[in-house]
Amino acid sequence: MKHTDGTLLIDQASIEKCLTMKDVVEICDRTFQGFGEGTTINPTKVTLDLGEESAYPPYEGFMNAMPAYVGHLDTAGMKFVGGFLGERRKQGLPYLTGLIVLVNPHTGNFTAILEGAHITNMRTGAQTAIALKYIKKASSIRLGLYGAGMQGHTQTMAISEIFDIEELRVFDSSKESAQRFKENMKPYVKGEIIIADTPEQAADADAVVAVTPSKDKFIRDSWIKPGTVVFPMGSYQECEDALILNADKIIVDHVSQALHRGALKKLHAEGLIEEKHLYATIGELAVGTKTVEDENGRILCIPIGTGALDVAIGQVVLDRIKAQGGGFSFSFV
Amino acid sequence: MKHTDGTLLIDQASIEKCLTMKDVVEICDRTFQGFGEGTTINPTKVTLDLGEESAYPPYEGFMNAMPAYVGHLDTAGMKFVGGFLGERRKQGLPYLTGLIVLVNPHTGNFTAILEGAHITNMRTGAQTAIALKYIKKASSIRLGLYGAGMQGHTQTMAISEIFDIEELRVFDSSKESAQRFKENMKPYVKGEIIIADTPEQAADADAVVAVTPSKDKFIRDSWIKPGTVVFPMGSYQECEDALILNADKIIVDHVSQALHRGALKKLHAEGLIEEKHLYATIGELAVGTKTVEDENGRILCIPIGTGALDVAIGQVVLDRIKAQGGGFSFSFV
Repeated sequence: MKHTDGTLLIDQASIEKCLTMKDVVEICDRTFQGFGEGTTINPTKVTLDLGEESAYPPYEGFMNAMPAYVGHLDTAGMKFVGGFLGERRKQGLPYLTGLIVLVNPHTGNFTAILEGAHITNMRTGAQTAIALKYIKKASSIRLGLYGAGMQGHTQTMAISEIFDIEELRVFDSSKESAQRFKENMKPYVKGEIIIADTPEQAADADAVVAVTPSKDKFIRDSWIKPGTVVFPMGSYQECEDALILNADKIIVDHVSQALHRGALKKLHAEGLIEEKHLYATIGELAVGTKTVEDENGRILCIPIGTGALDVAIGQVVLDRIKAQGGGFSFSFV
Repeated sequence: MKHTDGTLLIDQASIEKCLTMKDVVEICDRTFQGFGEGTTINPTKVTLDLGEESAYPPYEGFMNAMPAYVGHLDTAGMKFVGGFLGERRKQGLPYLTGLIVLVNPHTGNFTAILEGAHITNMRTGAQTAIALKYIKKASSIRLGLYGAGMQGHTQTMAISEIFDIEELRVFDSSKESAQRFKENMKPYVKGEIIIADTPEQAADADAVVAVTPSKDKFIRDSWIKPGTVVFPMGSYQECEDALILNADKIIVDHVSQALHRGALKKLHAEGLIEEKHLYATIGELAVGTKTVEDENGRILCIPIGTGALDVAIGQVVLDRIKAQGGGFSFSFV
């Protein structure tokens, strides 16, 4: 094991030490601009189904391979990330598992391998916050949240980097999780954190974010007021068909991914949602080629998640750790 | 850096020490059987174009992400592999660069990361040898080879594991490369190794293997005799359209990949080659659900390369290195 050249190995604790949510929001915002400019190159991710939907193998999980090139940092790489509900959950491990592999795009040399779940959690919050910044040109916001787990936390932390959260209504089927969330998130929320007794109560907000594993389409169209932006972020469809079909504008992070995963998958397969129904990408909003002016519109925003964000953040972490002279290096060749 | 649990890091030298071509042929054969049985799960690979075909970024390279699950070893993982002709070649580095990441498919824990180019080179030879075994039920063979580089070597070594090579005709635009190949490959070839003066001379064989970076469609239909099996293995179309369109049987390793990369890509884009024109997969030949009886048929076999082979070999290497108590372990979490 050499400590020069080679591939730098970066563990989760090292990432946590050198990366704030403010950093992540800034890096992701710049990378979204790259999508709009055409300098962020992000092919559609490929899924290895390990029983999330397939019958075989039956491990209640998946792994996604997400390669990307990020022009503004002139770096490339790939996140290999998965989620598991079976044996992994039994062992008490977090839902997500991931690695980010970075490549010098000029030579294909592997510059670093980083733990990937922590960056995934942070950037999944950041992408909502950034989309919201371009949709709602406000400084404060009333937030509704479904799911008080890890993702619920990072959504709240990221949104608080851009908005004053005037009120936060959170619903979780576990009251204990909701209570823990409330304690943890007090530093990030200016106003009150209200634990909703029913899902409907959490929908009374300027922005409604759903980060749940639900397959129940539990968010009703009738709950959503004009001017509310809904972010259904789960792997499955969390809102009823009417909420999607009645939306005035649908905004996504990546057209092809959004049609084949998550909230739009079923309606696309049925031919009811096509590319022409998508109003804009977050990248187009970030560079201003598309804008959202309609304050009373019913807006649906679906960021499925792109490897480019992970690669960009990974590169910034790598640069910082190299500057500090930290990390372990391993030569594969 | 802990030496227990964690992710085992395995460099190229360690792989070379514990893996023979015989091993690779056996592992790949079993994995092809898995394709036929349905126990090898291999989604279509995703390509990040870094200037191989795209104008931006202009680095004359690509990276492929190739996830797979291998049922007979109950393992999963992904190869991230690329080839570069620009800065990488200037630095005198080999064309290929790659890593193989292995995952426990029950939990998503990362069990190992291995250097990937060496295994890629070996298994690319092995897949030809195995396909040839199922197509030609002979013990000896006359081989024609285009390209005397690294891939030419591993093709020859792998084929020699299954067949006595009675004669080998090699053509390379560099006579020096051809001469070096001849010296290196003498131990693997029972008969004579003939350096062909023209490409046509190398086509007089039972099996013709092309491993070149050519975009010239230089292999002519008229050179190929009935009963000859042609393997166009390059990234671009090495044989003229007629040779493909006149083939009696086209055999591939992976239907979707074969239609979108390599020899068939252009004719598929033009609508001239469709899935219905593909006779069988190597996996179907391996389990016997399809057979090749036609001794005078003109057969084209196109193994584009599947991540499942790399994952399977990587797992066997990991098991051996763990059994020896070797390797370095790093904990990302």
